[in-house]
Amino acid sequence: MTQTPSSATDRITRALADLDQFGQRNAWIHVAEHSELMQAATQVDAAVADGEDLPLAGMVIAVKDNIDVAGMPTTCASPGASYTPDQDATSVQLLRAAGAVILGKTNMDQFATGLVGVRSPYGIPVSVLDPELVSGGSSSGSAVAVAQGIVDAALGTDTAGSGRVPAAFNAIVGIKPTLGLVSTSGVVPASPSYDAVTVFAADLSTAELVLAQIAHPDPADPRSRRWDSRAPLAAPAAPVYGVPTSQALEPMSASWRSAFESSVAALTDAGMRVVEVDITPLLGAAKLLYDGALIAERTAAFGTLLDREPHTVDPTVAGIVRTGEGKSAVELANNQFELARVRALLGEVWSEIDALILPTAPGHPSVAEVRADPVAVNSWVGTYTNFVNLLDLSAMAVPGIAPVGVTLIGPAFADRALLDLALHVQHVCTGRPSSSGGATGHPSTWLPENASIAVFG
Amino acid sequence: MTQTPSSATDRITRALADLDQFGQRNAWIHVAEHSELMQAATQVDAAVADGEDLPLAGMVIAVKDNIDVAGMPTTCASPGASYTPDQDATSVQLLRAAGAVILGKTNMDQFATGLVGVRSPYGIPVSVLDPELVSGGSSSGSAVAVAQGIVDAALGTDTAGSGRVPAAFNAIVGIKPTLGLVSTSGVVPASPSYDAVTVFAADLSTAELVLAQIAHPDPADPRSRRWDSRAPLAAPAAPVYGVPTSQALEPMSASWRSAFESSVAALTDAGMRVVEVDITPLLGAAKLLYDGALIAERTAAFGTLLDREPHTVDPTVAGIVRTGEGKSAVELANNQFELARVRALLGEVWSEIDALILPTAPGHPSVAEVRADPVAVNSWVGTYTNFVNLLDLSAMAVPGIAPVGVTLIGPAFADRALLDLALHVQHVCTGRPSSSGGATGHPSTWLPENASIAVFG
Repeated sequence: MTQTPSSATDRITRALADLDQFGQRNAWIHVAEHSELMQAATQVDAAVADGEDLPLAGMVIAVKDNIDVAGMPTTCASPGASYTPDQDATSVQLLRAAGAVILGKTNMDQFATGLVGVRSPYGIPVSVLDPELVSGGSSSGSAVAVAQGIVDAALGTDTAGSGRVPAAFNAIVGIKPTLGLVSTSGVVPASPSYDAVTVFAADLSTAELVLAQIAHPDPADPRSRRWDSRAPLAAPAAPVYGVPTSQALEPMSASWRSAFESSVAALTDAGMRVVEVDITPLLGAAKLLYDGALIAERTAAFGTLLDREPHTVDPTVAGIVRTGEGKSAVELANNQFELARVRALLGEVWSEIDALILPTAPGHPSVAEVRADPVAVNSWVGTYTNFVNLLDLSAMAVPGIAPVGVTLIGPAFADRALLDLALHVQHVCTGRPSSSGGATGHPSTWLPENASIAVFG
Repeated sequence: MTQTPSSATDRITRALADLDQFGQRNAWIHVAEHSELMQAATQVDAAVADGEDLPLAGMVIAVKDNIDVAGMPTTCASPGASYTPDQDATSVQLLRAAGAVILGKTNMDQFATGLVGVRSPYGIPVSVLDPELVSGGSSSGSAVAVAQGIVDAALGTDTAGSGRVPAAFNAIVGIKPTLGLVSTSGVVPASPSYDAVTVFAADLSTAELVLAQIAHPDPADPRSRRWDSRAPLAAPAAPVYGVPTSQALEPMSASWRSAFESSVAALTDAGMRVVEVDITPLLGAAKLLYDGALIAERTAAFGTLLDREPHTVDPTVAGIVRTGEGKSAVELANNQFELARVRALLGEVWSEIDALILPTAPGHPSVAEVRADPVAVNSWVGTYTNFVNLLDLSAMAVPGIAPVGVTLIGPAFADRALLDLALHVQHVCTGRPSSSGGATGHPSTWLPENASIAVFG
């Protein structure tokens, strides 16, 4: 749990001291100037002294380097593509309005293309659990900065697992909200129909508090959505969990598979209702991301960069993006029809279970393994995450029984119910507290309530 | 207004007599057997005698031939592609459950590709207003059958204007509901992301009554949507109408432009607030349908038919569908991004006006004009309709001051408010009654209420 700091200035002073002591570990691309940070913190403290209610006062937050922070360069881990925005992304603006201080911008797989965290010219931010192992990506630096305790929370982005895999590989939590709940205005697009802004934190209550500030309709984002007023605001008293069949776990490494099976056993031992679900259609949808034409969205979002400045793009990333150039519009349309079909199939699944519990990744590769086969290992890492945004699902990654990370998955707008379920699952697997709130000094907040009183329109 | 018939058997007897007397005028591809119709009508009469509440009892309805009716061939105006379904489309099932008798299947532009009504091997169902002029399409037969008074209402479909243009060209009303409100399960896809089932009737109250029966969430349709509980259920007391600038009317024929300008003048004379809106971005989005890669959805929906059975496809239709084959996935993705951008732009427009009023078509071409230049004239006809579904809008086509037809356009889920506005506009322009309900013997119903009590899940 995050400790409530005495003041924003104390907290930022501690964050800077921690950075000095523990090092940046390749997690950072840009850290704000000391004087600017102290000025921002002083303003927060003054506002609090004036009686302003700032839910994030005293919190220091990191921002992935594909999300604009005014006055700091946005590089997407490509120095050649760097620009310095004069306006915050909507999500960052909301964080600041709620009293957070932004420490800086974090490292990432270039252009958010990757799930491993090694595709960056700014170095490899390895896992805090084992320096031989990757941190996961693409939100590598954000997860590491949170896991180190330098910051209280960090923003990431997630198209195919970038906000969940790094949480699993650093034993923290990662919330991948329903598409459109958090504005992507001011975020460099990866695959715009499927991009989400995510929150990393050491615990769910902190992540929830941060998410509640930034989940807000935004006219500047064409894909912004309002909270569905029919969505459940809590989990049912006797939830039913769906788990994959044994066959669907075959891609897993031995240690992660064993830990996942132990996690599921712990749930049934704790009296929770667990039913097997055939996730074959989901894994099939995931394959469209690499084998189909959906990659063309990423190619389109790249625009002419590959032709104009090929030297600025990592060769692995360039290779992936180039594959979209040869795809036909008819194949893309057919892939989109197929996603709609699987989405409809899932409707029946959600009538039988409250959440699907999957391993967040099939295993945790080393840096050496990724280097030996960068595309195939990356693809393997995304086995259980790739399909989530394609199918408009909500997801929450939490630690399971070590070393596995587990993700709870629900339909769009199940976010609030998933939080209850994630607290439960995490409690059973790790002994962490099973209720949220309290530690930050603010009552537990959530989207609908917050949306109606937020300061930003 | 539809007259309340004494019974379903009386009504179907009259419909068959009218068909005999006035002729089918190429409006029909299949008319049900006399014995089957009488049996269906007898069942309805018996149910009513038993006290069942059947809102559509005594109504005879036609169904466009790309919508499945069990036991009748679905041809899409291509005899070679014909099949006979053993199940009703969801919309047809709901019509029957509400007491309607389905008279038969109506002619259409083949595969719903066209806005003119001449692209069919089953003949040309010309306009009831003037036999030299086209009926409009693709729902040509449905509109003509309603305008002739043979049926009380008819189902059409609409991807780029097929449920609105034929209403305008036959001086009836056509409701194009928000995408997903009416299930497209059992409808042959044209461009699935943008296909809607529509309702034609002589007056708005009849159309509303029919729509209320079929607007229902359907798990079988991946694109089905529930009514947005925040959507307005009525128009505001002092609505504001948006009208196009004079420049945007330049494509219009002289007689239709003059009638449209008179219609707008009548609104202002009646004290309604009218503001000019720049619809350039909408007209730009419409161009993507023909000049961009969006056509690839239609090509994909066609599947392998063009290669397997090229002789079954009208040459003009084949030419249009073939253009999708050469488009790239990147162009399609970019077109979809552009639609999302324009949709976001429109958000501001809807905060200033309650509905946009546009001519339904720029003019009313003759059969000879269409034959002389089938693609260009068709494209011109769709000037003010093509963009509506691409941008997820709701629309209602009603007669303006003759000869023009006008369409009221609003955001998704503005359907209920548009109905109030359409009644007003129609009243001012044509002197028709300005309130709905009563004539059919049933109170005015609408989507949210009906959705909760409907018999079909």
